[in-house]
Amino acid sequence: MATVPIITLTTDFGAGSTYPAQMKGVILSIAPHARVIDITHDVPPQDVLEGALALEAAVPAFPAGTIHVAIVDPGVGSQRLAIAVHTDLGVFVGPDNGLFELVLRTADLRNAVALDRPAYHRALVAPTFHGRDIFAPVAAHLANGAGLDVVGSAIGTLTRLPIPEARRVGVEVHGEVLTADRFGNLITSIRTADLAEWDMPSLEVIVGGAASAVMGRTYADVPVGELIAYLGSSGRLEVGVREGNALRQLGAGRGTGVIVKPG
Amino acid sequence: MATVPIITLTTDFGAGSTYPAQMKGVILSIAPHARVIDITHDVPPQDVLEGALALEAAVPAFPAGTIHVAIVDPGVGSQRLAIAVHTDLGVFVGPDNGLFELVLRTADLRNAVALDRPAYHRALVAPTFHGRDIFAPVAAHLANGAGLDVVGSAIGTLTRLPIPEARRVGVEVHGEVLTADRFGNLITSIRTADLAEWDMPSLEVIVGGAASAVMGRTYADVPVGELIAYLGSSGRLEVGVREGNALRQLGAGRGTGVIVKPG
Amino acid sequence: MATVPIITLTTDFGAGSTYPAQMKGVILSIAPHARVIDITHDVPPQDVLEGALALEAAVPAFPAGTIHVAIVDPGVGSQRLAIAVHTDLGVFVGPDNGLFELVLRTADLRNAVALDRPAYHRALVAPTFHGRDIFAPVAAHLANGAGLDVVGSAIGTLTRLPIPEARRVGVEVHGEVLTADRFGNLITSIRTADLAEWDMPSLEVIVGGAASAVMGRTYADVPVGELIAYLGSSGRLEVGVREGNALRQLGAGRGTGVIVKPG
Repeated sequence: MATVPIITLTTDFGAGSTYPAQMKGVILSIAPHARVIDITHDVPPQDVLEGALALEAAVPAFPAGTIHVAIVDPGVGSQRLAIAVHTDLGVFVGPDNGLFELVLRTADLRNAVALDRPAYHRALVAPTFHGRDIFAPVAAHLANGAGLDVVGSAIGTLTRLPIPEARRVGVEVHGEVLTADRFGNLITSIRTADLAEWDMPSLEVIVGGAASAVMGRTYADVPVGELIAYLGSSGRLEVGVREGNALRQLGAGRGTGVIVKPG
Repeated sequence: MATVPIITLTTDFGAGSTYPAQMKGVILSIAPHARVIDITHDVPPQDVLEGALALEAAVPAFPAGTIHVAIVDPGVGSQRLAIAVHTDLGVFVGPDNGLFELVLRTADLRNAVALDRPAYHRALVAPTFHGRDIFAPVAAHLANGAGLDVVGSAIGTLTRLPIPEARRVGVEVHGEVLTADRFGNLITSIRTADLAEWDMPSLEVIVGGAASAVMGRTYADVPVGELIAYLGSSGRLEVGVREGNALRQLGAGRGTGVIVKPG
Repeated sequence: MATVPIITLTTDFGAGSTYPAQMKGVILSIAPHARVIDITHDVPPQDVLEGALALEAAVPAFPAGTIHVAIVDPGVGSQRLAIAVHTDLGVFVGPDNGLFELVLRTADLRNAVALDRPAYHRALVAPTFHGRDIFAPVAAHLANGAGLDVVGSAIGTLTRLPIPEARRVGVEVHGEVLTADRFGNLITSIRTADLAEWDMPSLEVIVGGAASAVMGRTYADVPVGELIAYLGSSGRLEVGVREGNALRQLGAGRGTGVIVKPG
C-alpha cells in the first residue's frame, strides 16, 4: 500500500476545546486520507518554550516524512510570519516565533518558506485562528504532495527562541528545571549530551540548592518515596520520586536550580 | 480512492473517561474503515447549550457528508427520542433535546427520524449508555451506507433549545456571555451577522456594565494586558485580553451582560 | 478491503502529555496502517486497579482481534516482566503487574509470553519509558502479523492483582466503591452477575452506612437530585444522582461501603 501521510498537531488550544477538531475537519476536507495524530493540545497557554519541549520530545518518535503542525502563538494576527520548514526529520508548519527552535537544532534544515499564498489558505481567514485557516490547509496540501515552494516564498532566517542551557562551573554542571510531567518528574535544561561529553561517572544532583538525588537508571533503583535523577526518555536529565511526585515534594518549578556534581 | 466516511463525537463524557473509546470500539466493529474524530468530550456535564455551541463552532469545518454524533443527555433512558437528522451539512445523531439547535439553524434540513429500529442497536442496550449502544452503532450503519429511513421512522418536529439572542436597544446591541475558551476569551450571544446587518463602523463593547473593550481584528491590535472585542472564529462576538485571560480579569461568566454601542 | 488492525492505548501518562503521541509515532513507523485508539490516558498515576477497571469497561466494545496496550507501571525498569497475552477477546500487551486481571477473568486465555526479544524493541530502550520503546513496537509488530511466539518466550503464570469482591452476608450483599466517573456516578465492587445469581427482586442500596438509594434502571426513574442505584454499562452496580453528582453529594470514595439488601 502507498505511504499514508501523517500530520501531527501540537497546540495550546486545550484538549477540551473544539479548536483541534476544527483543524482536523479542514485537513480531512483537503487530504481525506491523511493520518492526524495529536501530540498535545495542553501546552500551557502561550508558553512557547513548553511547546518547543513537547516537539523536542515527540518528533523523534515519528517517521521522517511526518508533517508537524504546531501552534503556540501569542502573536496570531500580528506581523509575525507563518512558516513551513523542511528538514530531514519532517516538515514543520506554524508561527515563526521560535516554537521549532529545539527540534530544529537536531535536524538537517533544507528550506523554509513564509506561507504567503492565500490560494492554500481557507477562503476566509479568521485573524484569531490561523491554525484552522492557514496552518491546517497548508499542512493538508503538503500531505497531498505540494512542495514547500508551492505554498510559500523562501525565507533566509527564522526567529530564535532563547533556551536555558546547562553550563559547566568548575567540576559541576549547572542548569534549571524547565517543566514537569504528570508524575511530577522534573525535566531540566541539562541534556544527556551535556553529561556524556563531560564524562562524569558518579554523580549527585542537587535541586533547589538543598534536595539531593542520586543518579540512577530508573525509579526502581531507589526505595519508594526517594529522589532519583536519571537520563530521561527525551534526552534530558530528569529528577523524580519513586512512586511519588518530585514537583510537589520539592516545591520546584520552572527556573529552580539544578546542579550536577561528582558524587 | 473511495471517500472515507467521517464520524465525529461530541459529548460530556470527559476526555479522561473510557466512554468515548467504548463508542469507538462499537463503531469500528461495524464500520472498520470509518474515520472517528473527537470534537470534544469535555462539554460541562449535562450542559446542552455548551454542547450546541461546540457543534456550532466545529461542524462547519468538516466535509458535508460527515456524520456528527453528539451526546449531552440528562434524559438518557427516559422517553426523550433518539434521533438522526439529515442536512446539507451532514447527518446529526443524538438525543432529541435541542443539542443540534444552533447547527441546524444554518443547515438545510432534509429529513429526521426517531431511532426506533433495534436491529441497528446493540443487542443489549444499557439504559444509561445510549451513546455506546444506540448512537454509535446507528452512526456506523449510516457510515456503511444505510439510509435514515432504514434506521428510524420519520418524525415531523424536533425539540427546541432556548438560545440567548442579541437584541437591538436603541443604538445599542445587547447580549450576554455564553461561554469562554481555554484562553479565557468570552464568547457571546451576539453573532457576527447581528453586527453586520446593523452596520456599525466604530464600536465599543461593555462587559458586565463596566469594562470597556475597543473593537479590533485580533489581540495584536491592543497592548499586552488590554481588553479587545473581535469577531471570533465561530461567528460570534468575542472579548479577550491580549496575552491574558478575560474570563478571570473580568470575573465574567455565562449570563454576564455585553453591550455593543457606537464608539 | 482487508481488516485494519486496531491497537488501543490505556495509560496513566496524562492526556496532556506527549508520551501517548510518542507511542503512536513508534507504532505508525512500524505498522503504518494500524488504527490507534486511545481508551484513556488519565488513569490516576500508578493506580493499577483503576487501569484494570478501565480495561474491563472498554475492551468488550472492541472487535475480538484488537491489540490492547496498557501501561500503569510503577515498576518500570525493575525486574517485573513485560508481557503479551493472547485471548479470545484480543491480545494484551503491557507490564506483568495485574493490570489485565479483570479483563482476563472474562477471557479465554490462549498463551502468554515475556517480551524478551530485543529485535522487536526500539534500538535504545529508555529505562523509564517501556511504553514507547518496548510495548509500542511489540504491538506494532503484532499488528503486522507477528505471532506471540515470535516476540517473546512462553510463561506459565501471570502476576495477580487483588480485587475487592462483593460478598454475601445473610440476606445482604456487601461491597464497596471502586471508582467514579466524571458525572460522580459511583462504580462498585458488586457485579451485575453477583446480584443476578442471588435473585433479589426488590432492592435497596446503602452507601457509606447511611445514604439509601432505590434500585432502578436509569436516572430518569427518580426525581432530579435523588439517589439511584442501577446496573451500570460496564457490568457493575453503580450509584448516581439524577442530574447531580453522587461522589460529591455523598462524600464517597474508593472503599466506601455499599450494601445491597431486600427493599
